[in-house]
Amino acid sequence: MKLNGRSGRTIWFDDNKKHTIYTYDQRKFPHKTEVYEIKDSETAAKAIEKMVVRGAPLIGITAAFGVYLACFETQGDQTFTYVQERINRLRQTRPTAVNLFWALNEQEKVLLENKDLGHYELADLLFDNAVRMMKEDEAACKAIGEYGLSIIEELAATKEDGEPVHILTHCNAGWLACIDWGTATSPIYQAHEKGINVHVWVDETRPRNQGANLTAFELQQQGVPHHLITDNAGGLLMRNGMVDLVIVGADRVSRNGDVANKIGTYLKALAANDNHIPFYVALPSSTIDTAIASGDEIKIENRSDKEVKYVYGKNKAGAMDKVLICPEETPGYNPGFDITPAHLISGLITENGIKTASEEGVSQCFMSVEL
Amino acid sequence: MKLNGRSGRTIWFDDNKKHTIYTYDQRKFPHKTEVYEIKDSETAAKAIEKMVVRGAPLIGITAAFGVYLACFETQGDQTFTYVQERINRLRQTRPTAVNLFWALNEQEKVLLENKDLGHYELADLLFDNAVRMMKEDEAACKAIGEYGLSIIEELAATKEDGEPVHILTHCNAGWLACIDWGTATSPIYQAHEKGINVHVWVDETRPRNQGANLTAFELQQQGVPHHLITDNAGGLLMRNGMVDLVIVGADRVSRNGDVANKIGTYLKALAANDNHIPFYVALPSSTIDTAIASGDEIKIENRSDKEVKYVYGKNKAGAMDKVLICPEETPGYNPGFDITPAHLISGLITENGIKTASEEGVSQCFMSVEL
Repeated sequence: MKLNGRSGRTIWFDDNKKHTIYTYDQRKFPHKTEVYEIKDSETAAKAIEKMVVRGAPLIGITAAFGVYLACFETQGDQTFTYVQERINRLRQTRPTAVNLFWALNEQEKVLLENKDLGHYELADLLFDNAVRMMKEDEAACKAIGEYGLSIIEELAATKEDGEPVHILTHCNAGWLACIDWGTATSPIYQAHEKGINVHVWVDETRPRNQGANLTAFELQQQGVPHHLITDNAGGLLMRNGMVDLVIVGADRVSRNGDVANKIGTYLKALAANDNHIPFYVALPSSTIDTAIASGDEIKIENRSDKEVKYVYGKNKAGAMDKVLICPEETPGYNPGFDITPAHLISGLITENGIKTASEEGVSQCFMSVEL
Repeated sequence: MKLNGRSGRTIWFDDNKKHTIYTYDQRKFPHKTEVYEIKDSETAAKAIEKMVVRGAPLIGITAAFGVYLACFETQGDQTFTYVQERINRLRQTRPTAVNLFWALNEQEKVLLENKDLGHYELADLLFDNAVRMMKEDEAACKAIGEYGLSIIEELAATKEDGEPVHILTHCNAGWLACIDWGTATSPIYQAHEKGINVHVWVDETRPRNQGANLTAFELQQQGVPHHLITDNAGGLLMRNGMVDLVIVGADRVSRNGDVANKIGTYLKALAANDNHIPFYVALPSSTIDTAIASGDEIKIENRSDKEVKYVYGKNKAGAMDKVLICPEETPGYNPGFDITPAHLISGLITENGIKTASEEGVSQCFMSVEL
C-alpha cells in the first residue's frame, strides 16, 4: 500500500510502546488521513462496531490485538475470566465477517492453553499470535494477487495495443480492508506494477460508499486509472462490452462456495453471468466458514436506516457533513450484505490458488500449491 | 395525486392568464414544495434540461406547452420559422425519453397544417393540442392503473390475512413523472384506494435519488406503506422472498419490447428473473418508439460526473446542500439509463391492456380493448 507516497500497513505498533495499536480512522477517508489509537479492548470493539476499521481481514486482526490489550485491564487470577469475557464482547461487534470469529478463536486457543500464566506472559503470547495472523494475512493477500494476476494477463493478451483491461469492483476489498495489498485489488495492483494497462470501474457502494470513499482513494494513491460509477451502472457497462472482468472480496464463504459480500454484489454477479463476463471472488482462506453448508445459513447484518437516509461527505465549506435525501419521516431498511450463489462465481482466488466455487473447490482452498 | 392533502395535476395553467404554465420544481422535493413558472419556450427547454421537470410523460407535455409559448415570442410571417426553430431547440433537451419527440411531433403536425395562421390563432391550436395530450396522458395513467390492479389483486389473493403484497419499484414513475396517477405507481395507488394491503420497497435510485426524493415523498403523501432501500438491496430482498412483484416505468420501448429506463433497472430485472418474481413495465403507448427495432439502437444519455461525485440533500441546518463522496480528483462516469431486454420482462402494462414484451405484444399496445 501507498498512502501519501509512503509504504506501510493499515495497522501497526511501536516496538517500544506496545500497549498502543495504531490504525486509520476509515470514516475520515478520503478527505482526511487520521491515525486512530487503540489502547484498550473496548476501544478495539468500538472501532469495529463503528466502522473505524472495516473489511473482513482487518476486523479480524484488530479484534486479535484487542484481546491482547485486554490483558492489561486486569491482573492476578482474574485474567483468564476477564480476557475470556472480552473475547465474547469482541465477538458481538459485527456478525457477518467470519474472519472476526476466526481471529478470536485463534486467540482463545492461546488463552485456553495458557490459563495459568500471569497477564504479562499471556499478553506476550497473544501479541505474538496477533502479529503472526497479521503477517499471514499480508502474505495471503500478496499470494492472492499473484494468482489473480494470471487472469488479468490472459485478458491483456487478447487486447489491441494500448487497450486497457477493464475491471469492475464493488465496495472496498483493497489494502484498507486488509493489512496490505487487499484481496480484490491485489491482482490489480500487481498487474499495474508489472506495466499491464488496467482500468477500474469503482462501484460507489451505497449506503456507506466504501467504493467512493476508499477504493477510489486507494486507486488514486496507487496511480491506477479508474472511474467512479453508481451501483446502478455496472449492468449497462457489462451489456455494452465495457467490462472484461469483475473481482470482489468476501465477508464469508460457505462450504458449497456461496459468498456473502457487501450488499449489491449479487446483482453484479447476475449481470456478469448474463453477459458472459468472468466474475471472481478474492479471499484469504480464513474467510471460509466450514461450519456452514450454504449461503442460506449466513446471518445477514441489518444496520440502521440512518445509513440509507443520510449521505456523508465533504460540504462546500470543506467540513465533513451529512445530507438527508428523503422525507424526515421515511422509514428505511438496510441489510449490509447479500449472498451470491456459487453457480454465478467463475472462481475463488485464494492464497492457495484459484479454486472453483464448489464443495470440492472450497475444500482445496486450505491446501497450498506451488506458486 | 395528493400534495399536502390536495388533489391536482403536476402541470397547470390559469384560464385567465394562459401565457404562464405552472409546474413544481422537482429538484426541491421532498424538502420544499415550490411552484415553478414557465412563461416562454426557453424556460420550458431549460426546465427539461435541468430536471425541474422529469419523467418521460411530463417532459413531453412540458415541451408541448413550450411550443405553444413560443408563439408569443414572435409575430407576422416570422412565426412559422421561429416556432419550428423552437421545436428543434426543445428536441435537444434530453435524448432518451421518446415522449419528448412524440409530443413535439404532435405539435409540429399542427404547425405544418396551419402555416398561414397568425400567431394568436396558431397559439390557440397548439394550446388545445397540448391540453389534449395532457388529458390523454392522465387518462392513460388511470387506465394503466386499472389493468395493473388486476396483477396486484391476484397476488393479494395468495396472501394470508393481513400480509401485504410487497412491490419493488425503481426511480420515480409516479404522478410526479406524469400528469397524475403515475405509470408504475398507478396500480399501487388504485390497489391502496381499494383497501388492498400493499407495501412498497423504494430504490433510492442513484445518482439523482429520485426514489428517495420523489417516490418516497409521493407514497408518504398518499399514505401508502413503504421503506426506502439502497439500489444494492433489491437482489437480497428478492432472494429472501420479500418481494412479490416489481413494477417500473419506461423512457423508451423498442419494437421488440426492450425497455430503456433509469440506470439500474436491468439489474433488478435480472434479480427478478433469477428468483421467479414477476417484473412488469408500466407505460403509456406514447413511450413506444416504433422507429427502432431493438434496445441496442436506443441512445443512452451520459450525464455529468458531478451527479456521481456529489449527493444533494438537506443539511443539519435545514438548508439544501451537497456533499462530495470521493476524492476531489476522482473521475466519474454517469450513464443515465440502461436497457432491459424483453425476455426479462413479464409484461407491458399500457392504457390498452397488459401486453407481452415482444414484437407482437408491442404492436398491440396501440390497440384499445374494453376495460
